[in-house]
Amino acid sequence: MNNFSYRNTTQIHFGKGQIAKIKDEVPADARVLITYGGGSIKKNGVFDQVAQALDGVSFIEFGGIEANPHFETLMKAVEIVKKENINFILAVGGGSVIDGSKFIAAAARYPNDPWEIIQTYGAKVTAAVPLGCVLTLAATGSEMNNGAVITKAATQDKLFFFSEHVQPRFSVLDPETTFSLPARQTGNGVVDSFVHVVEQYVTYPVNAKVQDRFAEGLILNLLEDGPKALANPTDYDVRANLMWTATMALNGLIATGVPADWATHLIGQEITGLYGLDHGQTLAVVLPAVWIYKKEQKKGKLLQYAERIWGLTDGDDDSRITAAIENTRTFFEKMGVPTRLSAYGLDESVIPAVMQKLEQHGHTQLGEHADITPADVKEILKLAL
Amino acid sequence: MNNFSYRNTTQIHFGKGQIAKIKDEVPADARVLITYGGGSIKKNGVFDQVAQALDGVSFIEFGGIEANPHFETLMKAVEIVKKENINFILAVGGGSVIDGSKFIAAAARYPNDPWEIIQTYGAKVTAAVPLGCVLTLAATGSEMNNGAVITKAATQDKLFFFSEHVQPRFSVLDPETTFSLPARQTGNGVVDSFVHVVEQYVTYPVNAKVQDRFAEGLILNLLEDGPKALANPTDYDVRANLMWTATMALNGLIATGVPADWATHLIGQEITGLYGLDHGQTLAVVLPAVWIYKKEQKKGKLLQYAERIWGLTDGDDDSRITAAIENTRTFFEKMGVPTRLSAYGLDESVIPAVMQKLEQHGHTQLGEHADITPADVKEILKLAL
Repeated sequence: MNNFSYRNTTQIHFGKGQIAKIKDEVPADARVLITYGGGSIKKNGVFDQVAQALDGVSFIEFGGIEANPHFETLMKAVEIVKKENINFILAVGGGSVIDGSKFIAAAARYPNDPWEIIQTYGAKVTAAVPLGCVLTLAATGSEMNNGAVITKAATQDKLFFFSEHVQPRFSVLDPETTFSLPARQTGNGVVDSFVHVVEQYVTYPVNAKVQDRFAEGLILNLLEDGPKALANPTDYDVRANLMWTATMALNGLIATGVPADWATHLIGQEITGLYGLDHGQTLAVVLPAVWIYKKEQKKGKLLQYAERIWGLTDGDDDSRITAAIENTRTFFEKMGVPTRLSAYGLDESVIPAVMQKLEQHGHTQLGEHADITPADVKEILKLAL
Repeated sequence: MNNFSYRNTTQIHFGKGQIAKIKDEVPADARVLITYGGGSIKKNGVFDQVAQALDGVSFIEFGGIEANPHFETLMKAVEIVKKENINFILAVGGGSVIDGSKFIAAAARYPNDPWEIIQTYGAKVTAAVPLGCVLTLAATGSEMNNGAVITKAATQDKLFFFSEHVQPRFSVLDPETTFSLPARQTGNGVVDSFVHVVEQYVTYPVNAKVQDRFAEGLILNLLEDGPKALANPTDYDVRANLMWTATMALNGLIATGVPADWATHLIGQEITGLYGLDHGQTLAVVLPAVWIYKKEQKKGKLLQYAERIWGLTDGDDDSRITAAIENTRTFFEKMGVPTRLSAYGLDESVIPAVMQKLEQHGHTQLGEHADITPADVKEILKLAL
């Protein structure tokens, strides 16, 4: 096991009815900005629960944060935060709303051009407006970590930043808020969580047994309950298990003391930035290709994955690995997320565009060994056509 | 899954050499009390590492905190904290030193008779001296939770308290500090961790899949690496896996959203208080007896445990459950911890004494259904003779 430092300060309130806990978490004299997305929270009762919990607290709203939240949109909220002396942000939504709200929180207290936050990966952030979350989609884990992914629409740049200052003070996770999700978002969320886990697990062995067993448990949960959520969207326990699994997948816990391979996310982000595919769709396309391309290097962990997740113990190493990767692909497809670029109308013209963006962003050494160059990405994307 | 609220603010520094991180965690102008136990840290180099990390910081020492730390001993440290204006406590040791230091931290800021802290389970604690830990034994999980168990020697009362104010600010977990442990302490620690996990797992099913999978992972780690630690006490990865497993076993994470059955701990504590058995020894004795006595009520989870931990899928329910319990007993014995009262020279005279202590402490409704009365404890202890 590698050395690590770990701490996670977010207060979680999990379960039905827990939105009411907001009133204990938001200071009574706060001036709150409620941020949200396309407005589904106004139809499914979530906004009403939030407003009721904030009874007596001053708040204004900022809706319309899109998927892959745009810098341009978020800067409008930053102006409101400054003009209205907002001192608490309550993000109500999925990962895009929460990520966007993290950026708003940091940008509103940032002395220079806020795009610099992204360009410096958050390293220069020294303050942020306090943030709380009401999660409505099991997927990104943003509700219990300090990262965010932001897109500058004008230049098709999808990039991330981290700062302890945007770690949510609290997050409410009520599985009932996810009952009314479209199947596409449920499927994307399961794929996103799945890929988060395996990017911290399918690397090389360091004999970190807690982390491996936890990762394997999360994967098994997604395999079991992901399809159930598509079949029975209002099954509380299924939604609860997916929600807590997604949070655990990216709250830093399974990352402790192990290497990580974020190549799939970094390549996928460029595809979303350039072509607008859903985040989960890009991951479903890229992950199997990364694994096929790197199967020798990842052999130890891929064999462990094949055995402990898929029960594959017969046949030679290569056939077990190939079967495990194919099973993974089949699972993503079962979740309604196609795993080939061609399924989204994209062809090999994608390749040079993604390579160029990665170079432009300085992401030229990806993977747990930092040895995936743009030339390797070319080969990986050929496997994803 | 049941509703829950969860937060854990302890900063963990894990790995070899991490004791040096203390210097970033303890304020430079602090007046520190270093607390420890029998003095092994003076022989194995741990104290030297701590002193080096505290170079330039004012500290004094308080050694001699015994296993099952005594109220009487700890009150001497409380006097020192007050007299010397101590404003930071650094506990260097295992669960007893950390638990004792939590009590010192709370008692030094408590306006009334400190024994009241115990009598009110910590509910009246409103402040404590800030506490940091250097863990030297994988067992209790105290390094990342807000509980402590204290014994009043004069009356043979072993009791607990909880307070957010004694949650460690940070804990250093360096597996190398456990290389020189006696086998008995290693064995006891594995049993203690094991029992922590199953007390939050072998209850009744609530379809909490993250918690179940995490619990099962921790158990499998203990089964795999516990015996290895006895065979090769200086195997770093083995000690690291046991240490992180023990911390995860009782830091609140696997407790989220599930019932718990602390009957084994509560009965075991009375046996230690009365007869001085090691904490782990009492658990190894009581747990199998609780499971046998409650096997119908715990059937669902015992069958899950039998299958996922021991691979038991053949035979009828009762035979699988019986085999799983016997395997558990065998594992404890393999760790050098006998599982019968008779092995410790105790006989049925224990039974009325334990029943009386439980009544005296108001612990008359134990278990996940609060239905284990002293009369049931009588039957349980008969099964443990």
